[in-house]
Amino acid sequence: MLSGTQLSDGMRSVFVELLVHGPLSRAEAARRLDLSPSALTKLTKPLLESGFLLRQPVGDRGALGRPSQPLAVDPSRAALIGIKLTEDELFAVRTDLRAETQSELRRPLASHDVDDIVTCIREVVRELNGPGTAAAVVGISLAGTASGGDPVVPTSPFLGWRNVPLGNLVAEATGIPTVVENDVRALTAAQQWFGAGVGRSSFALVTVGAGLGCGLVIGDRLVRGAGRGTGLVGHMAIHDSGPLCEMGHRGCARAYASSAAIRRAVSGILDRPELTFEACLALAAEGQPAARRIFEDAGRALGQVVATVANITGLELVILSGEAVAMYDVCADAFDAALAAHTHWTSTPVDVVIKPFTFNEWARGAAVIALQHRILGSGA
Amino acid sequence: MLSGTQLSDGMRSVFVELLVHGPLSRAEAARRLDLSPSALTKLTKPLLESGFLLRQPVGDRGALGRPSQPLAVDPSRAALIGIKLTEDELFAVRTDLRAETQSELRRPLASHDVDDIVTCIREVVRELNGPGTAAAVVGISLAGTASGGDPVVPTSPFLGWRNVPLGNLVAEATGIPTVVENDVRALTAAQQWFGAGVGRSSFALVTVGAGLGCGLVIGDRLVRGAGRGTGLVGHMAIHDSGPLCEMGHRGCARAYASSAAIRRAVSGILDRPELTFEACLALAAEGQPAARRIFEDAGRALGQVVATVANITGLELVILSGEAVAMYDVCADAFDAALAAHTHWTSTPVDVVIKPFTFNEWARGAAVIALQHRILGSGA
Ligand SMILES: [Zn+2]
Ligand SMILES: [Zn+2]
Repeated sequence: MLSGTQLSDGMRSVFVELLVHGPLSRAEAARRLDLSPSALTKLTKPLLESGFLLRQPVGDRGALGRPSQPLAVDPSRAALIGIKLTEDELFAVRTDLRAETQSELRRPLASHDVDDIVTCIREVVRELNGPGTAAAVVGISLAGTASGGDPVVPTSPFLGWRNVPLGNLVAEATGIPTVVENDVRALTAAQQWFGAGVGRSSFALVTVGAGLGCGLVIGDRLVRGAGRGTGLVGHMAIHDSGPLCEMGHRGCARAYASSAAIRRAVSGILDRPELTFEACLALAAEGQPAARRIFEDAGRALGQVVATVANITGLELVILSGEAVAMYDVCADAFDAALAAHTHWTSTPVDVVIKPFTFNEWARGAAVIALQHRILGSGA
Repeated sequence: MLSGTQLSDGMRSVFVELLVHGPLSRAEAARRLDLSPSALTKLTKPLLESGFLLRQPVGDRGALGRPSQPLAVDPSRAALIGIKLTEDELFAVRTDLRAETQSELRRPLASHDVDDIVTCIREVVRELNGPGTAAAVVGISLAGTASGGDPVVPTSPFLGWRNVPLGNLVAEATGIPTVVENDVRALTAAQQWFGAGVGRSSFALVTVGAGLGCGLVIGDRLVRGAGRGTGLVGHMAIHDSGPLCEMGHRGCARAYASSAAIRRAVSGILDRPELTFEACLALAAEGQPAARRIFEDAGRALGQVVATVANITGLELVILSGEAVAMYDVCADAFDAALAAHTHWTSTPVDVVIKPFTFNEWARGAAVIALQHRILGSGA
């Protein structure tokens, strides 16, 4: 169900195809969906009537010389709200149906108390909705074992939560259907539909920032991993001798490549505790030798992580992103060398796409997961 | 198509459900397939008429007190041939439809010449078929980037092959449709349908032997990896300081845990070049300290590999098998400790099932891949 329009499986397929790949001519849409022209017409009719689909003016695609009016989703027909919870802050966006951000805001979290956070979310949703039409759905993403479709957050270590029915609590507080998802999987879903993953049936998203994360799409499906958590690459062993992570692993990926580890290492060796991650990155970019070496070590660790993921899954594209992805600029050679060294010798190289990141990408990912679940999921 | 019976999608689903999970009562089959009783009857009728399905005598399941006659596949209705090619030998089995071995044989390979090998396969197929009904399909498995559905072997390093259309050549030589597949994926398919993976929607098979391999089933589908190869865990970095593999990696998984590496290490340190892998294993089992330590190092490497696969994919079951899997007996503690140490701290433990192995399992896997492709694939 999407704002009063009951979607059949066929209508859903048409809608998603046009949302992700549109505008498409009727002929092209029918070909992609393996439908007869009349079957396509039957499926698009209610979507056109309810305003979810538009016939594009021919002028928009005049250069192609097509006589027919291409079909497209009207992205403004409904709005989505996406929210990312971190340990101390909430980031929220209101987007259109193609997850383009229309407005955004952020709030500090006063506590990890569930009621406080639900209240904060309710106010944020109210503010983003404003006096106009309420968003059709709310998506919430956070680190932890949440998995779309289940309103309960089983564990979220950094919030100290266990079995919190966040989806239901927010839906009650806001009156809007709410979906909760692991943050890295949500970001992966956004890349699958509206990012560098469009048109690729299998890819990984590797994120670098406060932690390392990895989302997988295999055979057009987001891998969910049945509760154990997927893409847990943060503590992958890199070197026996190496810095410690906070779990006491010597030389794990996170001990080399998380933004906190890098900041700790650079500010420590230079005895400048005030340095932020960004300042450390600037020092490395300027050529400060110790800072540079620390970023290169991080790049090598990241290259090994990416190679290991690609070796195991066999996928052909890795999107590298996350709030610290700008580090790639100062460690590209080290990253590339480690990626090549650890790629299995019988394999062709994996494509790596560097995707610049703003923090609101996390919240956009949450909006996309909510959209997918409302349209494709059991609640659709 | 299966021996003259044209299968619709619905018939195929019924057949596979009964092949993998049967015998099933009509009620249970209808429930599992989400079919009405009459739809099930319509789909089973041609399969019963062609003899692929049987009504089981009630006596066979009398203990359940069911009045209806459960449905089952007649496994003897068609035969499969599976062949595994190694660097110097060919292993072949003829099986029934549930991949139960009826006869088997092995042949040394005189050369890696494609024509020689096709000739050898033709003779082996003729011998296994004997004077009776020819097998319905031939499956061939080998190390390399072969992938079911494509008759061409893109690369098989140990045979020195590149783009060899083995499937077509064997089909021409034998007159029997032929499917070619990577050996580890074929073995994984056999576990999925007839082994420890039955009823599990996601699992990994990790093999240990001449090399290390890994096959993945995620969301009920065998992961194929689009040509880059999947499950390439053999050269995963374990320790910076460690033995070399033949590719010059220091301390990779294969350098610790392949049967050749273990044999090399044990026979070297004991200065007994005549020791076989089995003899080394016997020494470790008797408590010879150096042999024991080498097997423990191998077990630790294997535990780290299994944990890394589980961390990345999130799957809940790992089947450990392969021709050297008997080593687990002497290194279980080391394996378990490494598995626990490398399992991501937010994850529940992964189930590990140890699956004893005979070399003909490889050939059975090839038979199952052929069956799947004949029944489920584009050639079905
Ligand atoms: Zn760690
Ligand atoms: Zn190696």
